[in-house]
Amino acid sequence: MSVRESVEISGHLMDHGILSRVLNDIREYAGDYVIDRFDVGRETDDPSRALITVIADDDPSLQRLLMRLQTRGVNQVDPGEAEVAVAEQDGVLPEFFYSTTNLETRVRVEGTWLEVGNPEMDCGLILERDESGTPARVYTLPMSDVRAGMEVICGASGIRVTVPVPDKSAEAFGFMESEVSSEKPQAVLVRQVADGMREAKQQGKKVLWVGGPGVVHTGAAPAMVAMVEAGFVDVLFAGNALATHDIESSLFGTSLGIDLAEGRGVEHGHEHHIRALNTIRKQGSIRAAVENGVLTGGIMHSLVTHDREFVLVGSVRDDGPLPDVHTDVIEGQRAMRAKLPDVGFCLMVATMLHSVATGNILPASVPLVCVDINPATVTKLADRGSSQARGIVTDVGLFLEQLAVELVPDYRRG
Amino acid sequence: MSVRESVEISGHLMDHGILSRVLNDIREYAGDYVIDRFDVGRETDDPSRALITVIADDDPSLQRLLMRLQTRGVNQVDPGEAEVAVAEQDGVLPEFFYSTTNLETRVRVEGTWLEVGNPEMDCGLILERDESGTPARVYTLPMSDVRAGMEVICGASGIRVTVPVPDKSAEAFGFMESEVSSEKPQAVLVRQVADGMREAKQQGKKVLWVGGPGVVHTGAAPAMVAMVEAGFVDVLFAGNALATHDIESSLFGTSLGIDLAEGRGVEHGHEHHIRALNTIRKQGSIRAAVENGVLTGGIMHSLVTHDREFVLVGSVRDDGPLPDVHTDVIEGQRAMRAKLPDVGFCLMVATMLHSVATGNILPASVPLVCVDINPATVTKLADRGSSQARGIVTDVGLFLEQLAVELVPDYRRG
Amino acid sequence: MSVRESVEISGHLMDHGILSRVLNDIREYAGDYVIDRFDVGRETDDPSRALITVIADDDPSLQRLLMRLQTRGVNQVDPGEAEVAVAEQDGVLPEFFYSTTNLETRVRVEGTWLEVGNPEMDCGLILERDESGTPARVYTLPMSDVRAGMEVICGASGIRVTVPVPDKSAEAFGFMESEVSSEKPQAVLVRQVADGMREAKQQGKKVLWVGGPGVVHTGAAPAMVAMVEAGFVDVLFAGNALATHDIESSLFGTSLGIDLAEGRGVEHGHEHHIRALNTIRKQGSIRAAVENGVLTGGIMHSLVTHDREFVLVGSVRDDGPLPDVHTDVIEGQRAMRAKLPDVGFCLMVATMLHSVATGNILPASVPLVCVDINPATVTKLADRGSSQARGIVTDVGLFLEQLAVELVPDYRRG
Amino acid sequence: MSVRESVEISGHLMDHGILSRVLNDIREYAGDYVIDRFDVGRETDDPSRALITVIADDDPSLQRLLMRLQTRGVNQVDPGEAEVAVAEQDGVLPEFFYSTTNLETRVRVEGTWLEVGNPEMDCGLILERDESGTPARVYTLPMSDVRAGMEVICGASGIRVTVPVPDKSAEAFGFMESEVSSEKPQAVLVRQVADGMREAKQQGKKVLWVGGPGVVHTGAAPAMVAMVEAGFVDVLFAGNALATHDIESSLFGTSLGIDLAEGRGVEHGHEHHIRALNTIRKQGSIRAAVENGVLTGGIMHSLVTHDREFVLVGSVRDDGPLPDVHTDVIEGQRAMRAKLPDVGFCLMVATMLHSVATGNILPASVPLVCVDINPATVTKLADRGSSQARGIVTDVGLFLEQLAVELVPDYRRG
Repeated sequence: MSVRESVEISGHLMDHGILSRVLNDIREYAGDYVIDRFDVGRETDDPSRALITVIADDDPSLQRLLMRLQTRGVNQVDPGEAEVAVAEQDGVLPEFFYSTTNLETRVRVEGTWLEVGNPEMDCGLILERDESGTPARVYTLPMSDVRAGMEVICGASGIRVTVPVPDKSAEAFGFMESEVSSEKPQAVLVRQVADGMREAKQQGKKVLWVGGPGVVHTGAAPAMVAMVEAGFVDVLFAGNALATHDIESSLFGTSLGIDLAEGRGVEHGHEHHIRALNTIRKQGSIRAAVENGVLTGGIMHSLVTHDREFVLVGSVRDDGPLPDVHTDVIEGQRAMRAKLPDVGFCLMVATMLHSVATGNILPASVPLVCVDINPATVTKLADRGSSQARGIVTDVGLFLEQLAVELVPDYRRG
Repeated sequence: MSVRESVEISGHLMDHGILSRVLNDIREYAGDYVIDRFDVGRETDDPSRALITVIADDDPSLQRLLMRLQTRGVNQVDPGEAEVAVAEQDGVLPEFFYSTTNLETRVRVEGTWLEVGNPEMDCGLILERDESGTPARVYTLPMSDVRAGMEVICGASGIRVTVPVPDKSAEAFGFMESEVSSEKPQAVLVRQVADGMREAKQQGKKVLWVGGPGVVHTGAAPAMVAMVEAGFVDVLFAGNALATHDIESSLFGTSLGIDLAEGRGVEHGHEHHIRALNTIRKQGSIRAAVENGVLTGGIMHSLVTHDREFVLVGSVRDDGPLPDVHTDVIEGQRAMRAKLPDVGFCLMVATMLHSVATGNILPASVPLVCVDINPATVTKLADRGSSQARGIVTDVGLFLEQLAVELVPDYRRG
Repeated sequence: MSVRESVEISGHLMDHGILSRVLNDIREYAGDYVIDRFDVGRETDDPSRALITVIADDDPSLQRLLMRLQTRGVNQVDPGEAEVAVAEQDGVLPEFFYSTTNLETRVRVEGTWLEVGNPEMDCGLILERDESGTPARVYTLPMSDVRAGMEVICGASGIRVTVPVPDKSAEAFGFMESEVSSEKPQAVLVRQVADGMREAKQQGKKVLWVGGPGVVHTGAAPAMVAMVEAGFVDVLFAGNALATHDIESSLFGTSLGIDLAEGRGVEHGHEHHIRALNTIRKQGSIRAAVENGVLTGGIMHSLVTHDREFVLVGSVRDDGPLPDVHTDVIEGQRAMRAKLPDVGFCLMVATMLHSVATGNILPASVPLVCVDINPATVTKLADRGSSQARGIVTDVGLFLEQLAVELVPDYRRG
Repeated sequence: MSVRESVEISGHLMDHGILSRVLNDIREYAGDYVIDRFDVGRETDDPSRALITVIADDDPSLQRLLMRLQTRGVNQVDPGEAEVAVAEQDGVLPEFFYSTTNLETRVRVEGTWLEVGNPEMDCGLILERDESGTPARVYTLPMSDVRAGMEVICGASGIRVTVPVPDKSAEAFGFMESEVSSEKPQAVLVRQVADGMREAKQQGKKVLWVGGPGVVHTGAAPAMVAMVEAGFVDVLFAGNALATHDIESSLFGTSLGIDLAEGRGVEHGHEHHIRALNTIRKQGSIRAAVENGVLTGGIMHSLVTHDREFVLVGSVRDDGPLPDVHTDVIEGQRAMRAKLPDVGFCLMVATMLHSVATGNILPASVPLVCVDINPATVTKLADRGSSQARGIVTDVGLFLEQLAVELVPDYRRG
């Protein structure tokens, strides 16, 4: 016996290979399909629309498959009503909870469509009611924050997602359409990132940076400081390493002893490193170290003096850590989430761990660029279903230098 | 004006390039030196001994340089007495604290040499007295665990470190000395790792594994289960990912959808992943899931049923996490440290983050092998001054398969 | 003004993303399109068929675009007749020559469809007539072998290509469909390669190996020798390095001094290397060295004693080279081409240069697997439009060891 | 029984780890040693000197070991007289031929010390006499160019090599000594390369570039053209690919369709590529294409119009190739060798194959910098005993852009 459901998807289905992926998903989940109707966009700019009957062995399999397909923007033709179940335990979702995407999502509860305010992947959807018991709000919540008694959306019914339409500027990142053939690709890339940041600022949005210690090792700290001062760094997500290396460099004025030829910095066993940590711990916080005149330069100093925000989240390999570092990673994720509203552009530089962590919680609607000299880091991000992610494999030091030249009029003039 | 101190180092100074590194360190710390005496080992097996006068601009610089040189096994000719200062704040070491190495260390306090029981890099040395006020014990402590009032060793005086002598079996990892030319290098490597594990077990020591999700992705879980059952995995350090992928694979019996061609697994956006986490969270722990018959196979199941130990420490990119995961990384480090006594061999497989974390806290006396398909991970470990670290760049799946064939007589016979 | 042509394509257009690539190509060539009709396969196994009008600015642009689209299996609805022009210069094709794909190709000349016997990418198509002047044969020819007076097919008319249908065994390489979830992915891969070779042999076809010096460095020479003896290596394409390292290892019985930890062998500056070359040069050929009892073991020895074929083609970084090496690369390509008839399976191991060279001349109908520890090599092959290429990122030494265990019953029993 | 020889080496033996490597070599060649005397440089700048007795099983082993040690700059205390044997076959050296290093070398024949004019690795040394039969000249010759009747130096006697003293500017490439801590490492590197080129030009020497197609793919062609025009490119060594991509880009004005995100260009199956080759082949040469107005821009155009030299050497994966390409690799090596006199600086960019080929034939006295985004390429070069090689792992496009800004006053002003 088998169960079936009609689903639909529209957009530039063939241009971007979306339909291929949808059909692959169905097979991967051991399902089957019939394409009932396919209205193909005749001309280049016309959208296509497909109606597909999805078939699975039983209802649980079908529900899972439908949830999976929603990550591609596939919705049920007749969405029906969302089902709701009550969480019985803190930190645990009901068995058939709807697992979220990072796409714009609406949920129909008791006849009303509610917009999910904070799309985030791999969360549960929590229903909140007003005093009269009327459904008032649906929001994403990671399973660790679920509390017994909360109402949770279950199954795939009553839910619609919307895949963001790639706009002109996003298209530009495709690099194939570039009309000016004599242009230098690398210069084009730098300019596109600069344009993305400027546009976000013009719309009153924040620019989020996610950085690893490579920013300091490649000598890009002065470039980043210039961009902080010029207003292009509103929030920084990082770990203990970026901040410590930056502070160590400021406190001890040392050449960091980087072996550039092999692309690796001397992270450990470096006595300055551990002494820098102790110095800031003594002050109580990075801000205190700045205000007490102990820390007088570098990236962290400029973030403090220009009142930018930063969230440092620790990892198991940390020394110290700095007093500002969240040692509880779940607390750290919460602190990062709290900074996401109003972010309009995100640049990830030289860090796999914090880039993936940020990609996990960022809505698909935020333009996202990942820069690293290691192709694996760039690929990893792009793999994660963040359709908005663009990767640039290049030297972080030279890239940030060029970006500062592009964004900060006086950079390197003095 | 300048200050100076006589130091000495002995061993196979030239064979292993140690002296080059010592002199490089001196220059890097802006110091100078005179080689006062150099007794060279005439024949291949004779040790050499060097007496060097180290010169620095001022005493703080000299003390730092001396501490740095101790990481290479260089001691003061006249070690003198250790200085002691009292910690004034929780989590902060006194200004001139001695920053530790992972080498065997002795400290002379008030005329008595005390052995440091738990060598670990980048810690402070805490002095404990007995009831009569006599120095009784010196131990390493990470700065975050320091409490006000503790007595802390400062400066470089009164301290001697000993570099482990590479024994025959360690030499074998050099691969150059292999006498049987027709041997297959890869087979030799597998056998050497197997020998290292067997030797540790014969000495009544524990074998520590540090693993990443690649163990599951490359299909090596059955091989690892066989080695757990055969008694070659006493402790596992890992993150949320290895355990979750392993459990997901057992619960859902799914092909994991690995794109082996490009060496990457589908970590995220995979609905099974998040559902596996929720299932175990509902049970309360991995052990409970095993005991309740929910989890019936895989690596974590075999660790539980064979009463092996594991420490899972989280990271900022985790979903869930599993209820057994330490979400506070400092707590996680403490939990890892607690398992180190009696470890006699350490194998690190397919994880950069947890391998570096383990390398940070492991004494230099424990043989250590790091296996990864990514040369950068292997290099990173070897860089960290763990003179005992050996790296093997190979396919994790095939390597563990071969290791199981070597260690477990019946493996692949059934 | 613009020109247009009706084209068609059929197959599993959406499953494999082919249509996306076709439309991308059109845009990349500054063309436009209208999808006139799209008959979608309703059920999973039904093929789809698309009729597309392709639009370009002028006829030369259109012809180029049509040739480009043929690399995807797109043919003109009304193919018409092939145009023919005469080459005016040795080594130069007429201006609008048809640039070939590696797909099965038929050409209609003067009313007759002729099958191209030896499909190869990026060649010209030469028309041969019988004594009566009737078109008798069309074959691919690289531009360097063109002679003045030859008749060459021009433009995109009169040509049909056929994309190979991925059969079940090829599908298996997709790795996603594997039904046996408890299987070890790496073991599955080894078995699939073994199956591919066995199938080729059963069909009376030859197995072609393309190898780099890593085969010797990783200790896989004994495994390869066993497979030569067992009949699974009919032809070897390689460079000077594989053969020289293999011979050096046999002549001098030396440990090769491989630094396995960092995955690199000592290629140069190694006095044995240059002396091995001189020894074989003195003999006049590898075969002579074998027959004179100078060379008594290794891969090259087993190829000679078992009468297998090999083609060694040199490169600019070669020492020596061995007397059997083609120092002229165009001659080398010709020698390689001469061995292609009847090849039914191709395994490429540990070489970028010779793998790409072989991929250039191999018909798309030959199953092709590329094994390397470096993902870049594997990706490069897969990029080159060889739709039949499968890549495996793994350790070459362990992989060949496992392959020998799979293919050779007595291997490792002795 | 065993044989022994006294050897000596002097210099900064410990600082640079040379002595470690010498002793490793002795063990690797199954020899033994006694250090008879070791005069250690007391202060930082003093050289050290070691007298070592080297022991081997028999004379051939000893001779080989002594030749090996000469690659490290180790000479016999009593060099004695060189032995000479006559080559009996074309292309074959006598059995105990001396295998050369790329170091400055002198040979004592019949009482006279002769300087080797063209040091090159892995060659034979040929003795030339004047009309009176007096030894007049000793020069390196690759074994393929040896002719029967030539007199060849054999064994290790009568030969002295000199390791170049790293001068201040070379030291600077060490990157550790940099005094200005706030400097950006990447900017420092660019400036050092620029300084090396300027210095070579001031000394009337030539600057040699070795380049791969990545120069074009990363958009660095305009930067390189500017440096050609400014006189900083005297000779270019490359393959068919760099020249063809550059020409294709000029002829067709196309965006090259580079997938920068993944760092790979579309090399093949690209119809423009094969058509560009045909166009130049029709002209007969790149120069003819420039003179006939067919080729009007790009790197190759600027080399021709500014009368710079280039040597293109083919490989087995080439299409076409361009008419200027040496298809015989041994001929190609000869053509490259002919351009080496007066080269005073060498920059290798984005090519493994041609970089290794150039490293093989370049004297150790020529400063050499290798730039690539792939650490493996950089490491490979540095491994090959070219003590003068410096590697920079960075983005080729941004690096050349910055180098042009540094070297060409008006670059990017227009």
